[in-house]
Amino acid sequence: MANELSSAMGAAAELVEQEIDHLLPMSNITEAKLFEAMRYACLGGGKRLRPFLVLNSAGLFGVARDCAVRVAAAVEFVHCYSLVHDDLPAMDNSDLRRGRPTVHRQFDEATAILAGDALLTLAFEVLADPATHEDPKVRCSLVAALAKAAGMHGMVGGQMLDLIAEHEQFDMGSTTRLQRLKTGEMIAFSCCAGAVLGKASQPQAQALHNYAHDLGLAFQIADDLLDIDGDPAVTGKPVQQDAAAGKATFVSILGVERAREQARLLADQAAHHLDIFDERADLLKSVATYVVERRH
Amino acid sequence: MANELSSAMGAAAELVEQEIDHLLPMSNITEAKLFEAMRYACLGGGKRLRPFLVLNSAGLFGVARDCAVRVAAAVEFVHCYSLVHDDLPAMDNSDLRRGRPTVHRQFDEATAILAGDALLTLAFEVLADPATHEDPKVRCSLVAALAKAAGMHGMVGGQMLDLIAEHEQFDMGSTTRLQRLKTGEMIAFSCCAGAVLGKASQPQAQALHNYAHDLGLAFQIADDLLDIDGDPAVTGKPVQQDAAAGKATFVSILGVERAREQARLLADQAAHHLDIFDERADLLKSVATYVVERRH
Repeated sequence: MANELSSAMGAAAELVEQEIDHLLPMSNITEAKLFEAMRYACLGGGKRLRPFLVLNSAGLFGVARDCAVRVAAAVEFVHCYSLVHDDLPAMDNSDLRRGRPTVHRQFDEATAILAGDALLTLAFEVLADPATHEDPKVRCSLVAALAKAAGMHGMVGGQMLDLIAEHEQFDMGSTTRLQRLKTGEMIAFSCCAGAVLGKASQPQAQALHNYAHDLGLAFQIADDLLDIDGDPAVTGKPVQQDAAAGKATFVSILGVERAREQARLLADQAAHHLDIFDERADLLKSVATYVVERRH
Repeated sequence: MANELSSAMGAAAELVEQEIDHLLPMSNITEAKLFEAMRYACLGGGKRLRPFLVLNSAGLFGVARDCAVRVAAAVEFVHCYSLVHDDLPAMDNSDLRRGRPTVHRQFDEATAILAGDALLTLAFEVLADPATHEDPKVRCSLVAALAKAAGMHGMVGGQMLDLIAEHEQFDMGSTTRLQRLKTGEMIAFSCCAGAVLGKASQPQAQALHNYAHDLGLAFQIADDLLDIDGDPAVTGKPVQQDAAAGKATFVSILGVERAREQARLLADQAAHHLDIFDERADLLKSVATYVVERRH
């Protein structure tokens, strides 16, 4: 399964990168630097986990690949915009991302701010376009759900909590909420987008929602573990950034061993939510295991 | 007409501020600072020109006020987000806006970046919500049009051009394009939103589009003139910022007198495009004159 998953993830990444390349064409007009920065932010590698989740959840319902890949690209635009803004000097002040200079280091700070803004905006333009789905009700649902997952009560709210966590001691409850907002809501959108595109039944949509919830938490715990013992040559970022910033993480609260155990438990639980889809959900099930065992 | 316009603008501003207050409730959860910064960015006064254009273009087609005011609030969210990011140290580095500290001065830079991101996202959430229009096709059209007006080929593209204009000498053509992107597209969206909400005929939509085009240019020339001879106590910002930054403006290219004449000409032309609506468009016509005669 591990090999099958890895080639499926590679194929999904290639599909979404082609779509991003298509949606963000190169240009030589005066403001081309903006488009270059947007491409730089989106085409520098990465696991493309969220696009994989969109494509595979859509696959459960036989959604046309041309539609699903547009939603996958929109999700990746939002993910990449959030990284660009997160890396800014006023935020995490990161110089490196995936082993390359961050957007504000490669270009400049103003361009990085604008490239992030433009990527976020483009995501909604892509979703609202008739090419994404023939039914405008489905397109509106996607726009509303993405805005909710990405906005003040989702990802951006989580980023604000993350800033506050540098000065306040968060307990397990607050840390769980922070992570659910910061990364969980976008992972949940990615898993549920397939259900929206495929007009899934209520139990099917609920199963994907439950899967996403456990997967998101497992993913974050694994991320915290990598921050402690990951190899910077593999993860592409320095270790123990969270500890240095004095932030509570699942690992600082639970300890390494219990955190690792908890991540595995959540991954198992996530997979079981998908039992109603039989073997059609095998790749989504195995990605849960991948998420907690990955080294980067 | 001047008195009638001023009370109509006041009424529109009050309506949209109530709606913003409703869409951005106060809160005391941990990340409340984000919501406070969003409210601070949107509820600090301003002419509310774009909401006025939305409400009055919608009025031409008898659109329900409850629907139009949501679109007006969405436009204002995008306008205010753009000001918050524009004011950042890496961009215009402004300390004051409408006579008050800018968001990053009142809060901090990270909060200002996130508040802008969240306002932009909220605009799309509001448009996609069924409360904005019963027809999902209309809501999708609004989302697509706003994303286009605000994104890489609209406002953000214009902001990028504006940064480039500090180092390159722009001619009349490039300056016109810069301003069309930076402010014109959002003004055009505001005028055309009413036509979309009201399912206007093609000639009606075209008339509003032509009106918006001339109004946007007139507005920008008037803005450039205020930068030269405005009273900072009235405009709330220092004069001659553009000249200090070495930027080409309509005034630096045309000179004060020809620029003033051109603005008046465009305002007249804008008004004439609305003749097909008879006296129902009188307020929209008079706002064109207001825009070029205003002192702030």
